[in-house]
Amino acid sequence: MGVEIERKFLPNGDAWRALGEPVLLRQGYLSSNPARVVRVRIEGEQAYMTIKGKSVGATRGEWEYPIPLGDAGELLALCEQPLVEKFRRKIEFAGNVWEVDEFLGANAGLVVAEIELHAEDQAFERPDWIGVEVTHDARYFNSALARHPFSAW
Amino acid sequence: MGVEIERKFLPNGDAWRALGEPVLLRQGYLSSNPARVVRVRIEGEQAYMTIKGKSVGATRGEWEYPIPLGDAGELLALCEQPLVEKFRRKIEFAGNVWEVDEFLGANAGLVVAEIELHAEDQAFERPDWIGVEVTHDARYFNSALARHPFSAW
Repeated sequence: MGVEIERKFLPNGDAWRALGEPVLLRQGYLSSNPARVVRVRIEGEQAYMTIKGKSVGATRGEWEYPIPLGDAGELLALCEQPLVEKFRRKIEFAGNVWEVDEFLGANAGLVVAEIELHAEDQAFERPDWIGVEVTHDARYFNSALARHPFSAW
Repeated sequence: MGVEIERKFLPNGDAWRALGEPVLLRQGYLSSNPARVVRVRIEGEQAYMTIKGKSVGATRGEWEYPIPLGDAGELLALCEQPLVEKFRRKIEFAGNVWEVDEFLGANAGLVVAEIELHAEDQAFERPDWIGVEVTHDARYFNSALARHPFSAW
């Protein structure tokens, strides 16, 4: 098991837009139950199946397996619809990598910035385009955005 | 995508018991939704994650990936409980392999024999210990047996 510790923020303004190259991510859920999420993701020419357990604070068990790109396309068709699509930009700042996700489709208008940490209490510097934290707001789980998209909030 | 075409029967008597070596299978479901089943299985020293689509007749899309045994143990703990446990015997008869599953735990008392085919209309010979067909009875789906075990029928 891997462990994912991440904190999520809403960006202020759009300075982030010029700071990284956007890569299209398409992902869907075979299970969006927060106790056992099963995600299929295509990122460029690579595809993964990822299982996530229940969140405890900002921490979550995670198991990830590469799968063939052709399988991923078939499995996305099997997933709960609609899929979640977003442009991801990776932005280095003060020794950390921020992932800024600009959502498309039913979640268009939503932008979320995440930082992955090694420990819950790890200190990190925030770029000035980072705004309010939403780590503990379950509406921002990508699995929740598949079922209850931003356009319906 | 692989395609699984299988027919299921209840055995008569217990002649099957002496015809194959029992191997213990432990499996659980990250999703038991029949439209997108996600199964984790440990069979001896090997482990797999298997995704199955909706059944159409005796046919079903199937995608299977080997996973590390240690991961499988962790993922089984994440699955819907209780797990499905069974002894499987593989029995050759007239050029085909029958899999006879003797269920344990909450499904103790249930025995199901399956034959995997290459086409829905493929002819095959039935051993005389094979009884009534239950291919189309959704109660016998293993994912259904996890949620509504034989002991509760």
